[in-house]
Amino acid sequence: MATYRAPVDDALFLLNDVFHLDRYGNLPGFADASPDLVDAVLREAGRFSEKVLVPLNRVGDREGCVRHDDGRVTTPTGFKEAFKQLTDGGWIGISAPVEFGGQGLPATLTVIVNEFLCSANMAFAMYSGLTQGAIAALVAHASPELKARYLPNMVAGRWTGTMNLTEPHCGTDLGLLRTKAVKQADGSYEITGTKIFISAGEHDLAENIIHLVLARIEGAPAGTKGISLFVVPKFLVNEDGSLGPRNAVNCGSIEEKMGIHGNSTCVMNYDNARGWLVGEENRGLNAMFTMMNEARLGVGVQGLALSEVAYQNAVVYARERLQGRAISGVKFPDKPADPIIVHPDVRRLLLSIRAFNEAARALVIWTALKGDVARRSDDPKDRQSAEDHMGLLTPVIKGVLTDRGFANTVLAQQVYGGHGYIAEHGMEQFVRDARIAMIYEGANGIQALDLVGRKIGKDGGRALLAFLGEVGGYVKEKSADKMMSPYVVPLGQAVTHLQQASMWFMQNALTKPDNAGAGSTDYMHLFGLTALGYMWARIVEAVLAKPTAAATANAKLVTARFFMERILPETAIHLARIQAGAESVMELPAEAF
Amino acid sequence: MATYRAPVDDALFLLNDVFHLDRYGNLPGFADASPDLVDAVLREAGRFSEKVLVPLNRVGDREGCVRHDDGRVTTPTGFKEAFKQLTDGGWIGISAPVEFGGQGLPATLTVIVNEFLCSANMAFAMYSGLTQGAIAALVAHASPELKARYLPNMVAGRWTGTMNLTEPHCGTDLGLLRTKAVKQADGSYEITGTKIFISAGEHDLAENIIHLVLARIEGAPAGTKGISLFVVPKFLVNEDGSLGPRNAVNCGSIEEKMGIHGNSTCVMNYDNARGWLVGEENRGLNAMFTMMNEARLGVGVQGLALSEVAYQNAVVYARERLQGRAISGVKFPDKPADPIIVHPDVRRLLLSIRAFNEAARALVIWTALKGDVARRSDDPKDRQSAEDHMGLLTPVIKGVLTDRGFANTVLAQQVYGGHGYIAEHGMEQFVRDARIAMIYEGANGIQALDLVGRKIGKDGGRALLAFLGEVGGYVKEKSADKMMSPYVVPLGQAVTHLQQASMWFMQNALTKPDNAGAGSTDYMHLFGLTALGYMWARIVEAVLAKPTAAATANAKLVTARFFMERILPETAIHLARIQAGAESVMELPAEAF
Repeated sequence: MATYRAPVDDALFLLNDVFHLDRYGNLPGFADASPDLVDAVLREAGRFSEKVLVPLNRVGDREGCVRHDDGRVTTPTGFKEAFKQLTDGGWIGISAPVEFGGQGLPATLTVIVNEFLCSANMAFAMYSGLTQGAIAALVAHASPELKARYLPNMVAGRWTGTMNLTEPHCGTDLGLLRTKAVKQADGSYEITGTKIFISAGEHDLAENIIHLVLARIEGAPAGTKGISLFVVPKFLVNEDGSLGPRNAVNCGSIEEKMGIHGNSTCVMNYDNARGWLVGEENRGLNAMFTMMNEARLGVGVQGLALSEVAYQNAVVYARERLQGRAISGVKFPDKPADPIIVHPDVRRLLLSIRAFNEAARALVIWTALKGDVARRSDDPKDRQSAEDHMGLLTPVIKGVLTDRGFANTVLAQQVYGGHGYIAEHGMEQFVRDARIAMIYEGANGIQALDLVGRKIGKDGGRALLAFLGEVGGYVKEKSADKMMSPYVVPLGQAVTHLQQASMWFMQNALTKPDNAGAGSTDYMHLFGLTALGYMWARIVEAVLAKPTAAATANAKLVTARFFMERILPETAIHLARIQAGAESVMELPAEAF
Repeated sequence: MATYRAPVDDALFLLNDVFHLDRYGNLPGFADASPDLVDAVLREAGRFSEKVLVPLNRVGDREGCVRHDDGRVTTPTGFKEAFKQLTDGGWIGISAPVEFGGQGLPATLTVIVNEFLCSANMAFAMYSGLTQGAIAALVAHASPELKARYLPNMVAGRWTGTMNLTEPHCGTDLGLLRTKAVKQADGSYEITGTKIFISAGEHDLAENIIHLVLARIEGAPAGTKGISLFVVPKFLVNEDGSLGPRNAVNCGSIEEKMGIHGNSTCVMNYDNARGWLVGEENRGLNAMFTMMNEARLGVGVQGLALSEVAYQNAVVYARERLQGRAISGVKFPDKPADPIIVHPDVRRLLLSIRAFNEAARALVIWTALKGDVARRSDDPKDRQSAEDHMGLLTPVIKGVLTDRGFANTVLAQQVYGGHGYIAEHGMEQFVRDARIAMIYEGANGIQALDLVGRKIGKDGGRALLAFLGEVGGYVKEKSADKMMSPYVVPLGQAVTHLQQASMWFMQNALTKPDNAGAGSTDYMHLFGLTALGYMWARIVEAVLAKPTAAATANAKLVTARFFMERILPETAIHLARIQAGAESVMELPAEAF
């Protein structure tokens, strides 16, 4: 069985020493998040993940979800009991509004908890994660009546949530969406259509399932401007809140897929199902984006989470597996061979993963804190700059953390040699599970286009300029510091590359947008590397500020150096590719491929 | 079902226009390989792959191999009939010696045919590929009696071959091997031990299975110097060549693994099984390396093969899937959306794969031709330089073609969005199948160590200097050519990086070998990129030498430019990582990971 230890101490270090959680005390909910409480919450989440969810991860992969002839779907052995424990513990609602039964704690805590849950069992964690996304969308956009009807049970986890966007002929291009909604006399709608790839669309973990569904109201404009969002419950809800009759929404089949077998990926058929409008007519995409952005951050966290658990298992194996001798001389003469962790190339694999994980965790927490500021601050300026940050960093976190997270699971699997290819050790499952994160909630190419086509130029480039200003200013400030310069000098190089790439788009993509498209993925990665490099510098600063002989502190410094020497310089190739432009990319006609 | 069209024309272009097969007429077997015959052989292999093997690829994945209680293993539906067609066609022995029933054609043809077979059905192609490897080992090392007894049936494909190296506690480090061999009065040996990860170890495709087994003769020295190679048939073979009683070798179980489900990966138990020594006592590794090197080239080809078939399917989908509009303006106003091949980022994915495939195919063919020279030339100087090339390029081809081949299947899967994650389209199977190629026949980290620790310094660096001399000389010669300079100038940069990296090892790794280990994988990729870049230059040269308006010719030039602009510049990051040295890699104690 795979092993996992939740990185609670690392999360606390980031919260307290790097990002100074204590400085956020003025935000609602943060005063309650005392150091003791945060410590207790994270430790308990770690314990739950390690003890309850880890043992179910391989079970979930092997058994998968089963659809029965009557349309019911059953989840793998143990999932139901574990989900009850999760909801009994109140985990779904720790950051949800108090008025709906949540604990109102910082959303940042939920993000950290979700990393642990996903590392332990990604397929399982999706059931609660999607519910949290649906809660966020309803909180932001639903009428008071809908909120009162649905939110308390969702926050409690008695009911779960889904998001229904994709149809057989339309994924990225939602303008092609066909599912239709017909308004009824009582103000409700009848929804008809087929949605595919609906995660957690049908299952046996909850009493009710609340589908958030994009559909086109009869007579609405074509394209994305005619899409509305509806809440469509599996069971209709009576006035008194009790469950009424079954709604006309059914799981037609579940997909056979590469991984996340423990999560039911459903084809959902809506056949004049009753639904209620969320937000305004034809503004459904806008409302869904609340859930999407939440989900995109969550998917980025999945990339980190699988990279983390894959790393931990690779380390265990590298310490135990005896094979060959250190090239610098025998290390364990009493053993038949040295453990493979003596080999530089094995360490290279491990450090490549770790140098990502710790910076990615920092990037996630930094951004999650901005999210809390954006939602909770009463200072409009703070809110705006936090929103700018969120908008800019969300595609980067989604795209880069899942691309690199997946690649890292492959590196970790490689440490196991042939044993990594065998199901028994669980390494190949991490690879298969991690792969989806690069695809769903907007394939990573779409994240890159969102970043390049929408986010960097928005409001005159305000968000980008703020980011470049912060990182560039930090580099300038710290360059003279002898202790910091080995870390900030490479960071300065990276931020210069990011500036050059941004400038190149300004000069070359406005008149020829293909130049932006051809460089978008490289730009996203260049951005991500720079952000991760900045995180490492901030981590190093925090380590140096608290002199200690602790081994973890030294490990941070060494890993940071590894990142600066071996990973951050990749920004140069991304810049070169961007500056190569679109010519060779666009020249061939489609039939020449 | 996945689609596949064997790239026969591309292979012919490489054989005829780039590598001038007609200049090899003096080698035995090459005179028979007339242009017409080569054309016919490749077209027929392509047809067989497309028509017979492609339809069995998904069947093989879904059904897998089944071990029955009596130890028998059955292969997926249709495999047996297809294997009979393969052997009836004489495909296993097209390059095998005529004296054992082969056709004696260039081994290069077998390598090309194997690419097609692997693209169509990798798990299936392994049965014949391993047999070819076992044939090569027996031809090179077995006694005339053993050859006469085993080879004709193996060449005919009535019997298949396996290689048995790995044991539960030893993979890379064969010095730890425990399987023992006890000499009998009649000169045979009794073999006892357990081997794991034995591909095609037991199945129902052939009348007999000929295991090549590494074992330690009683009293032999410890470590790798006490290992011998044995031939251990599943059924003993009578004097008259008929099958005798069952030998004491059994399949204990088959592994549940990530991919290649159609190939049976067996735990093989030898319980005083009768075997016969191949070659000299205690020189078994040497003999096995004949098979290993053959197999390593074959595994590199698997990387290319899966990259090719994944590319072809991604192209089909990119042309068909309508989603979004071209950012440069609507391309198909009469359709609800443009096909996604209009999007630069989708083209970037496709061209990244293609720019690898065509150069990798060239690299394989170039090296396979050297293999033919090494085995068949009567000029010792030609043989030596061809052997040098093979020794140097084998780890590069195995490591780089499988790393990039796998990564390319992931890129191709990405083109499909969510549909790539679903089993139905077959894209996720390519990813799972391709993954093993980075691991078996020596994990890629081992290939990198072989290259850096053994091959580049061998014989005073003779092979490396010859390679650098050839590529460097080519760059010098062609730089002044206006048509060629856009391709050779970037190549010049790459070969300079390779020289600098080699020099850096000379100066820094002799006294501190960890510096070689920490840079080995990057060196392997730097080498591979340079070799692929050289192949592109050679391809461009051949295209320019034959002015034509053919669309394929222009596609070659555009793809070459894409490679030069966007892939080859990666050599810089590899050089930077190599020059970063081992310090940050080796500093942490094992317990700090």
